[in-house]
Amino acid sequence: MKYIIAGCFITLAIYSTQAQTLHSPTKKLTLNFQVNTAGEPTYQLRFGAKPVIKPSRLAVLLQNQPGFDKGFTIAKIDSSATDETWAPVWGEVKQIRNRYKELAVTLQQAAAKNRRLVVRFRLYDDGLGFRYEFPAQPGFTYFTVQEEKTEFNLTGDHKTFWIPGDYDSNEYTYSTTRLSEINTTPIEAIQLKSAPQRVQTPLMLKTQDGLYVNIHEAALVNYPAMMLDVDTKAFGLTSHLVPSATGAKAYLQAPEHTPWRTIVVSDKAPEVLASKLILNLNEPSKIADTGWIKPQKFVGVWWEMHVNKASWNYADTSNIKLATTDWSKLKPNGRHGANTANVKRYIDFAAKHGLQSVLVEGWNVGWEDWANNWKEEVFDFVTPYPDFDVQELQRYAASKGVKLMMHHETSSSVTNYERRQETALRFMKEHGYDAVKTGYVGRIIPRGEHHDGQWMVNHYNRTAANMAQQQIMVDMHESVRLTGLHRTYPNWLASEAARGNEFNAWSTGNPPEHETILPFTRLMGGPMDYTPGIFQIKLEPWNPKANKGRQVHTTLAKQLALYVTMYSPVQMAADLPEAYEQHLDAFQFIKDVPVDWDDTRILAAEPGEYIITARKAKGKDEWYLGAITDERARRQTVKLDFLPPKARYTATIYADGKDADWEKNPMVYQIRQVLVDSRTQLPLQLAPGGGTAISLKPATKEELRKLKKQ
Amino acid sequence: MKYIIAGCFITLAIYSTQAQTLHSPTKKLTLNFQVNTAGEPTYQLRFGAKPVIKPSRLAVLLQNQPGFDKGFTIAKIDSSATDETWAPVWGEVKQIRNRYKELAVTLQQAAAKNRRLVVRFRLYDDGLGFRYEFPAQPGFTYFTVQEEKTEFNLTGDHKTFWIPGDYDSNEYTYSTTRLSEINTTPIEAIQLKSAPQRVQTPLMLKTQDGLYVNIHEAALVNYPAMMLDVDTKAFGLTSHLVPSATGAKAYLQAPEHTPWRTIVVSDKAPEVLASKLILNLNEPSKIADTGWIKPQKFVGVWWEMHVNKASWNYADTSNIKLATTDWSKLKPNGRHGANTANVKRYIDFAAKHGLQSVLVEGWNVGWEDWANNWKEEVFDFVTPYPDFDVQELQRYAASKGVKLMMHHETSSSVTNYERRQETALRFMKEHGYDAVKTGYVGRIIPRGEHHDGQWMVNHYNRTAANMAQQQIMVDMHESVRLTGLHRTYPNWLASEAARGNEFNAWSTGNPPEHETILPFTRLMGGPMDYTPGIFQIKLEPWNPKANKGRQVHTTLAKQLALYVTMYSPVQMAADLPEAYEQHLDAFQFIKDVPVDWDDTRILAAEPGEYIITARKAKGKDEWYLGAITDERARRQTVKLDFLPPKARYTATIYADGKDADWEKNPMVYQIRQVLVDSRTQLPLQLAPGGGTAISLKPATKEELRKLKKQ
Repeated sequence: MKYIIAGCFITLAIYSTQAQTLHSPTKKLTLNFQVNTAGEPTYQLRFGAKPVIKPSRLAVLLQNQPGFDKGFTIAKIDSSATDETWAPVWGEVKQIRNRYKELAVTLQQAAAKNRRLVVRFRLYDDGLGFRYEFPAQPGFTYFTVQEEKTEFNLTGDHKTFWIPGDYDSNEYTYSTTRLSEINTTPIEAIQLKSAPQRVQTPLMLKTQDGLYVNIHEAALVNYPAMMLDVDTKAFGLTSHLVPSATGAKAYLQAPEHTPWRTIVVSDKAPEVLASKLILNLNEPSKIADTGWIKPQKFVGVWWEMHVNKASWNYADTSNIKLATTDWSKLKPNGRHGANTANVKRYIDFAAKHGLQSVLVEGWNVGWEDWANNWKEEVFDFVTPYPDFDVQELQRYAASKGVKLMMHHETSSSVTNYERRQETALRFMKEHGYDAVKTGYVGRIIPRGEHHDGQWMVNHYNRTAANMAQQQIMVDMHESVRLTGLHRTYPNWLASEAARGNEFNAWSTGNPPEHETILPFTRLMGGPMDYTPGIFQIKLEPWNPKANKGRQVHTTLAKQLALYVTMYSPVQMAADLPEAYEQHLDAFQFIKDVPVDWDDTRILAAEPGEYIITARKAKGKDEWYLGAITDERARRQTVKLDFLPPKARYTATIYADGKDADWEKNPMVYQIRQVLVDSRTQLPLQLAPGGGTAISLKPATKEELRKLKKQ
Repeated sequence: MKYIIAGCFITLAIYSTQAQTLHSPTKKLTLNFQVNTAGEPTYQLRFGAKPVIKPSRLAVLLQNQPGFDKGFTIAKIDSSATDETWAPVWGEVKQIRNRYKELAVTLQQAAAKNRRLVVRFRLYDDGLGFRYEFPAQPGFTYFTVQEEKTEFNLTGDHKTFWIPGDYDSNEYTYSTTRLSEINTTPIEAIQLKSAPQRVQTPLMLKTQDGLYVNIHEAALVNYPAMMLDVDTKAFGLTSHLVPSATGAKAYLQAPEHTPWRTIVVSDKAPEVLASKLILNLNEPSKIADTGWIKPQKFVGVWWEMHVNKASWNYADTSNIKLATTDWSKLKPNGRHGANTANVKRYIDFAAKHGLQSVLVEGWNVGWEDWANNWKEEVFDFVTPYPDFDVQELQRYAASKGVKLMMHHETSSSVTNYERRQETALRFMKEHGYDAVKTGYVGRIIPRGEHHDGQWMVNHYNRTAANMAQQQIMVDMHESVRLTGLHRTYPNWLASEAARGNEFNAWSTGNPPEHETILPFTRLMGGPMDYTPGIFQIKLEPWNPKANKGRQVHTTLAKQLALYVTMYSPVQMAADLPEAYEQHLDAFQFIKDVPVDWDDTRILAAEPGEYIITARKAKGKDEWYLGAITDERARRQTVKLDFLPPKARYTATIYADGKDADWEKNPMVYQIRQVLVDSRTQLPLQLAPGGGTAISLKPATKEELRKLKKQ
């Protein structure tokens, strides 16, 4: 990792004006900061000449003392410039440039014993980050944030991609409306919608004059997640923090600071997807030796439970007590997925096809009545069901060169998980596991806390740190959405924290546009374990009676393309081995596609409509391309000018078949190979809800002889 | 342990009446159970012909479903009788007789799908225990208790010894008033008084016709503590459960049951103190091998902090972050008590005088700003201050045959303690500790939970169980008050959970009557670590400027007597070595007095006035006697007829000196030896706030020659 830091600090002792202007490195963006006549700090942001954020106030309200909201004067201004380059442990690109101008404004409240607050701005060419900093100062050590009132006053009635402000779930489909139309009332709650005009971040907006604006946060540490309250008349957004069990928002100790509030802006949608602003605003890796962190593909005893072909639970009973139930005496239901023989089948499949690991859900006791009971003692994370032989599977997997991936479903009984976590991690190390998928289904214990509140945010971060110490990789489901912390904890490979492919199995599903929105929203903060790769799009064959979600809402080819359009260092091949075995030609793409990259090019993108992405494999002369569309069929021509000049590549194209359609004919696909080079213009034809996946490898001599040029 | 169980079960299929009568084994008490015309279950209790509890309703209200309160009919009645004897691991007596009549009434609610509730009564000659049982039944597995409405309708305006219904503290002085006068409003809150007419249990009452009634609970497991709401006009008490963070009271899973509600009754105050009803209602020991459990006396680096001669904290600063503070760089304040040299001084003292162990508080980092900040990361329980050498002290203590006692102050950040407890216990085992004093000062985290709520009750019990598994003894401070669970977890030696001697150091103190009330209230549930043995009654010599509590509110002799009147298997010699060294003649009693007994006789007692107790040392032909009084001087003559006939004993009498007075002249005492036997009538003269302690050992030949007969 190489750092080039060019800092230049300027401190002025006296300010003739209460206003400051800052330009981004190439002057694309301009920030204005001003303390208004009420002593309220405000900021505004322009993209070239276009306003993006109109004058907006900055405020943090405190419990039992005056707020950091008004009566301020500027006490000090520090400004600097940084231009450095760093290399992520894994990711979409090999190197990331971190180039910004910084303005740190120290504000002082005369009426509150000259209490000080710092607002720190970092202005990039692709957006703005800013945060509140609470310096240690006499008489101000422990304090409680009652609310944060950061305004994002927008310039018009933008098109908005939003989900309701649920404190405990982000597993919603996106609504696309004008700001003025935002109303979560008709939407069925996943856990608990908090207010009708409250939405979550990352919030994606498009202005009427073609600007793309994304509002989120970076480095969510020791603070609740930020939601946004929408003023549907004035088009203003105001921050709303997820409450703790007491109703207060954050219990803090100075010196402390909030996460960065981020605004990514561009007039080109692909540039929003390419932005590294959120990663840049996070701290460098806290893990010194990262050699053990392995991006990976995996299969798992998982989808068969979602399609109701098998069960997580071993017995069919609805009253289990962890401390007293004798599991060996329960009557097996005969459908338990995590049995030794079945797991071996997945190990065999992974070994045969070169996938690194096998996730097994439902291996440990407690699944009979695990959910929705707000029960504290649910799982112990170390006791297998009688039909799951830990030692034998450890031996068998090792003999096949495959890793087993641990599963820690907590059912949101987090106190229980925390007190057992040390033992659970020791169990993992003793049995050869080096990665774990965690889960937080249901209501949180400590009761009254929320998934996205400060206490849980601290839990997720602490868990990532604990696991790093044990050299364990983690993939968190139902956690708070990501904010770039995978830079700091690169063992935190991914989270779910959005509506994944699984919803297609047992709900109304995900509309075809869903995967074209996720990269503009949830994925802005980091990788998602979306679990793509479902080949048996129609679910009938598995269990015709029980599947409520009758099919996945894409074509098969689009499932392949998702491995490229939705970046994650941990990607599941989510379908059953028997599904893949019927389409081994298509499965070849999943075998080939990497999970770590040297370079990424967003070739075309429009939120809610389409995304075309090309990526170069890490350390390899191979490129992969994914193109997806919403429910509309599309023809797109892509230029392969990202390829090095002159070299010829074999493009293996996995495309929607004739008359393919996500709903009526989703499983038809065609695979063809052609020779291409950097001058090639490749026409893509995407079916409704369809996609195309392409691998590009240097052409062999035989291929040069045999294949046609595109 | 010998069990003689004589059970006789009678089940009647049809009940011509909805009323049942049960007599205690020797018919001292009579219970009536009746379902009234509204289908409400009611009970009443008589002592001989005297009513104790008038008809009182039994009800448990549930969240989101009909309550277990009315519309009941009796579906089944089971009755039985038990008479068994068991031996406690340690205690006041060698053997305990458990003799009761039982009535288990199965109630059924036709309007609630024939839902069933069992009320189980156990009637002893010295009182009644009853509990609610929730059988597993179709459609009734997980449920939430909204409130319990158990009534104790009393027969008049009794004299009552009470403390306010604080959900988080029982460290109050007792108020003695009529029921009609109960009002907690003028009392300064220790944490949070919940309602003006709400009081805690054990609640001690005395009727105008001379009955002593004690109301409490036994076996508080997986349920909140019970408080009592007082109807000051009708003299009724109604149970009120301590709420969880959500306001609900208990999250339960059938089959489950509540703790036993207990009513101890006698016309003799000593019989209340001698009652083993609460212990009998608890489950037998869950610990198979109890050989490692050692009742013990200890000294500690402790009182010197309370009198402000030393500090818990190593540095004087008010802003510490556990994760980042470099303790070696803090400036020592020069007053840190837990330094290696000082601890060695205590080890030397303990070794010299045959005390088993040395408690050290303030040994671990974090004390600089540990309290009152509602901060989660306060202590880690494994990192010593720079001046506390763990290895050296381990070596030194072992070389002297003394044990160090660990201290885990949690500052009520219980989530933090739970996630570190496994490591903390491992640290103890690695460094030779086998006992720990825990502490829960401040507001609970998980925020919104209370010290006496279900979540914390589970924490205390889980902690006792975890420690039992590691063969660690525990003494819990600021925990919920005890309910006899030391029968089940005999490694749980004691709790504080009341106002201890420490309040004399830094507050208005404990009035002289305090220790005559505690055995009738707090100690009904189990041993208290009261920390008696303060010899330097006037605190001036230690630090004249800083001691707010200027003196202890007893005479020195009374401090000795407390070792007998307030039973605990773990007793501190709480004063400083230098205080004891000035009074080694009096200290001899503390050296001699056992902490485990074969027999106990309450010779005389009146709550709020006096207590005289004699106990026989475990496995030894020695007796000890303690007599204490309130602020009034008393003459009492005690018959030593508990001694075996004919044998002669040397009585060493530690009495208040001439003109002794708790306030004006507390430190004067006299020690004399006389020969006594079972016919001796020993006149005791107790000073105001005074007491007498006596050891009785078989007289040696020399003593027979030298000493006078009383």
